[in-house]
Formats: sequence, structure tokens, C-alpha cells
Amino acid sequence: MAKSKTEKPVILVTNDDSISAPGIKALVEAVKDLGKVIVVAPDKPQSGMGHAITLGHHLRLQKAHIVDGVEAYTCSGTPVDCVKLAVDKVLHHKPTICLSGINHGANHSINVIYSGTMSAALEASIESIPSIGFSLLDLSIDADFTAAKHYARIIVKQLLADKKLDKHLCLNVNIPKVATSLIKGIKICKQSYAKYDEKFVERTDPHGKKYYWLAGDFIINDKGQDTDLYALEKGYVSVVPVQFDMTAHHMIEKLNLWEL
Amino acid sequence: MAKSKTEKPVILVTNDDSISAPGIKALVEAVKDLGKVIVVAPDKPQSGMGHAITLGHHLRLQKAHIVDGVEAYTCSGTPVDCVKLAVDKVLHHKPTICLSGINHGANHSINVIYSGTMSAALEASIESIPSIGFSLLDLSIDADFTAAKHYARIIVKQLLADKKLDKHLCLNVNIPKVATSLIKGIKICKQSYAKYDEKFVERTDPHGKKYYWLAGDFIINDKGQDTDLYALEKGYVSVVPVQFDMTAHHMIEKLNLWEL
Repeated sequence: MAKSKTEKPVILVTNDDSISAPGIKALVEAVKDLGKVIVVAPDKPQSGMGHAITLGHHLRLQKAHIVDGVEAYTCSGTPVDCVKLAVDKVLHHKPTICLSGINHGANHSINVIYSGTMSAALEASIESIPSIGFSLLDLSIDADFTAAKHYARIIVKQLLADKKLDKHLCLNVNIPKVATSLIKGIKICKQSYAKYDEKFVERTDPHGKKYYWLAGDFIINDKGQDTDLYALEKGYVSVVPVQFDMTAHHMIEKLNLWEL
Repeated sequence: MAKSKTEKPVILVTNDDSISAPGIKALVEAVKDLGKVIVVAPDKPQSGMGHAITLGHHLRLQKAHIVDGVEAYTCSGTPVDCVKLAVDKVLHHKPTICLSGINHGANHSINVIYSGTMSAALEASIESIPSIGFSLLDLSIDADFTAAKHYARIIVKQLLADKKLDKHLCLNVNIPKVATSLIKGIKICKQSYAKYDEKFVERTDPHGKKYYWLAGDFIINDKGQDTDLYALEKGYVSVVPVQFDMTAHHMIEKLNLWEL
């Protein structure tokens, strides 16, 4: 890591549920004595924003309050914008690590690709900042973050203690919705193949025009026992290392047989 | 493929530059005799929207015109929304393939992760629809799509001719900004490690408050000769197979050494 032995690590914290979500406050509380924590989070909910960035509009930064003694800002853009703007205009350098969450709701399996929480973490990893996204399997605004805070702290401490840290390391951590005492431990996993089967709900507005709401079922196609979904079902915290190289390397040989 | 020998393949076409962009018209023109083409594209520009989906708002579909004889609709959502809504509410079944683009501007290297064009293609592949995203290395509204159309047609024909097609195949195709006669051919590549070094431009509004525009330089960290960027620099069309499994499989062994 870049910091010297005497310096405190700088921990950038963001999320996608906005600065007012209990989950980000829980994350700050869980790690605030592990380094110098600085929060730059969206000023409004940004769930499902994936890796969106703001190209056609300007961005705003505003000072905010989240936990006493912690410097905090809101950003008018997406979770990925928050990371980019935090590095360039708030910190003026790369933080030691970046944490995102704790998300209200699961980000296992294919959710990693739609998730603003995980996209913020992945953006940090693209920028050579080791990162972790945390998600609790409870969508509720009143979700109990006790177990999530406990495990977030354990994993962040391990990340900070790793002397040979890969600067592109990005972890997708999901925590089951059970009491801390019922969690069986932590499992390193791969992303499960499970996805949504979309069925849009059709409605008609007062002017007779149709509109559609995204809905649907979650379909699990993966019978593997090494996946995040399997670990969560068995009562473990799942940890999936995530990468931004999206190349399907296994397809290159086959494609070279095409007549192009 | 699902179609019988006598049936025409169904080709869903979308993009992120909106239905009014010349690039999507070029793509429809390039492939319209290869199957039954149906267009569902954003009603406004959606560049940089990544894999964003619309969760807190409803979506609208409107009939539109793009090329004579081709059924076309606009969708009020993101490129990924377009694919989801097209499958469920326009086609009522999966198309044979999905094509996205032709994007006005490059989507090589890390751009794949920010690109609405490529996210639409990847969404199709998640839904077991083989897909291709096409991008021309020319941002201009007046870009010349002649070479892009020529190569798009070659690659789509090969995709449709593949009898053992992987239903999750997703290709990221970039075309250099040169005349067709100067393009050296097509290269199968991996995603280059090159990224943006963001420097936000700071401005002050008439009320004395600061705001920020995303800007910055593109930094090439990859010296490889098997990458999309290298192929494009040498005058080739680059084809990168892309996958939605974001697991960093090579990190699992190392993480299992952590004390968790």
C-alpha cells in the first residue's frame, strides 16, 4: 500500500442508496477507527445504476453530515461519479482503500452487474484502489446491520493487513439476513449463474396510454456448491473477488475458427 | 439456434445514442435482409449509462420509424431496459440475436464497462441471446459508417451461420475510423488494460457555487499485442468476446489464505 507505516490508511466510503441510508452510516461506524474515513455518497437513491457515469450534465458536491467527526459530502451523480469525483476533487489523491455500502438488499450472482454499490467498488479497483462492496440481504430501511457491521470490520481489517495487496482487488461481500450468532463464517466464492426472468407489469395511465414497471422472478440456474448463492443459503457471508477484465478468454480460440 | 431452417432469424437492434442517431440506421441497413429486424432503442441519448436499469420509474414504449419496412419502437429507459422490454413486451419471445450500435465513438478497453451500447449487448447475452455491440472510432454525428456497415454485415453473417453457437456469446466489435479499403481485416482480441485518468473541470455558476464536468486523459497501460487497442492501432477491426461472469477466478486461491 502507498501509506507509510506511521500514516493512517485513508478509507473512502460510498454507496448507491444515498447518504441518508442507514446502511452507509452502519459501514462508517464499523470502520471509522481503522483509518481516516471520508464519505462521498450520492445525494439521492441510485440503485440499479450499474456502471453509469454522468457525461451530459455537470456534477455538484455538497458538504454533509453522517457520523460525528467524519468528513462527508454528497455528489449529485451516480455511485461511479462519486468515486471519480472523490479522488480528484475531495481527496486530491487515491485513498488507501474504497468501501461501498452497506447496501440495503442482495448483490450476489448477476446483481453485481446492475448494482451501483458494486460498480462504485469496481470503479475504485479500475483506478488501482483496492475495494469492497458490502450488501445485506434485507431491502428494508429498518434492516438490522449488526451482523453486517461485524463482518465488514473483520474483512476490512484483513484487507488493510494484507502486505501484498493487489491494487485491483475488488470484493463483493454479501451478508445473510440472520443474527450474527447464526452466521456460520465467511466463504470465498465465485459468482453464481442466476438471473431475473423479467415480466413487465403493464398499466394504463388516465389518458389511456400504456406504461410498464420492471418486475419478474429470480431464477437460479446454477447447482454449484462454490457459488455466492450457495454460501448465503447455507448461512455464510459470501466473498466473491470481482474483476473488470470482461474478456471471455475461453471463447477466443473458438472465434479464431470463424471465417472472417 | 432456436429457429427452424425455414424461419427467418429475428434480429433485435438497439443502441445507446438513441433512435435518431445515424449509427443505428446504418446498422439496420447493413443487416435488414439477413432476417426480420425489429428495433427498440432509447428515445434520448444514453451514452455512459453502463448496465443501468430503471427501478423507481415506469417505462414507455412508442412506435417509431427508422427505415422503411422495419418495425421500430422507442423506449424511455436505458439501453438495458430496451432489451428487457423488447423481449417481454414487443417480441414476446427471445430474438435469434441482438445487435447494438453502431455506436458513435470507441468502446474498446475499459469503455466496455461504461458503454450503454455494450451493456445492451451483454444484457442480451445474460438472457441467452447471442449478441454483438458495434462501435465506430468516430464520435461525430456525421461519421462515415461505410466501413462499419461492411464489417458488421460480415460478422453478423458469421454469427448467424454458426451452428454450434454459444447462447451467451457477446462480442465487442470496434471499427477504426478509416476507409474500408484501408482496413486490414478482423482480429479476435482481449480487452486492453487502458483507462481514463479523470481530471474534473471546475466551474462556478452565476450564484457563486462550484460545479464539475467529467474530463480527463485516456491512459494506455497495456503493451500487449493481443488487445483490442493494439489491433485498432494497426488498422484492424477488433472483436473481443465479453462475458458477464465477473469473478476474478485467479484471486480465489489467494483469498483462501486470508484469516477470516
